[in-house]
Amino acid sequence: MVNSVGRHLEEAAYLAGLIDGDGSIYIRLKDRKGCKTKQVLIVVAVIQRSDKIEFLKNLQALWQIGRIRVRKDGIGEWYIQKRSEVKQLLQIVYPFLKLKKRQALICLKLVESLLHNDELDFGELEKSAREVVKMNLSKKSKLLQMSP
Amino acid sequence: MVNSVGRHLEEAAYLAGLIDGDGSIYIRLKDRKGCKTKQVLIVVAVIQRSDKIEFLKNLQALWQIGRIRVRKDGIGEWYIQKRSEVKQLLQIVYPFLKLKKRQALICLKLVESLLHNDELDFGELEKSAREVVKMNLSKKSKLLQMSP
Repeated sequence: MVNSVGRHLEEAAYLAGLIDGDGSIYIRLKDRKGCKTKQVLIVVAVIQRSDKIEFLKNLQALWQIGRIRVRKDGIGEWYIQKRSEVKQLLQIVYPFLKLKKRQALICLKLVESLLHNDELDFGELEKSAREVVKMNLSKKSKLLQMSP
Repeated sequence: MVNSVGRHLEEAAYLAGLIDGDGSIYIRLKDRKGCKTKQVLIVVAVIQRSDKIEFLKNLQALWQIGRIRVRKDGIGEWYIQKRSEVKQLLQIVYPFLKLKKRQALICLKLVESLLHNDELDFGELEKSAREVVKMNLSKKSKLLQMSP
């Protein structure tokens, strides 16, 4: 984790800019075999060409959270989905986010509820998940396709 | 322009993250009618969906440089190509860039030469322009297509 306070704030601001420009913050509701309720995944991810994977590894080393993988399509990804780490990361970047502030807040509240084992309203949750997906629409989608 | 020093550094770091994630720094060599030498354009640009154009306008207002336009494909763009402004912006973000540091340095040196009316070596310049284009290859290109 970054040490001096000024440096920490600048690195946090940089990360917020990177996530606003190119990252994803989203909720996934996953069916579970034999269960009525779904598994709730809250994910923060940053992607890069696989030849830039060192850059992602450096971010992971700096913040000491998340994992690095190379997706099937050859894109490198730094993804954070462990709940305590998602909470930590969103708290770090939240003050500096400009574009993805709202979905960060929704996900932060949700991850805190999950960490406290609060009972979830799955109707509300699906609404939030849909809302967050809509906010993540890609730049080129012109509001038609969905991204991430 | 941003006022307090700490705030300034955080905004500069945010902008560097945004440019690393989603911005372009490039050189364009444009033919000029009746001229043997080409026009040299050095551009820094950040794009967003046109419904997020307020975000780009706020950045422009904060840094007081560049222009906002909506491209023919409906994408909003904050682009900076006035040489003194390109120099100013690259100097602001350079200390914080991680991914696009090298092309920023090439463009910064070039824009300084142009502002000082130094004589240009067009062979070297084309080499630099090609190098910068290669660095800007998009994440999904897998080194085949070129971007921007």
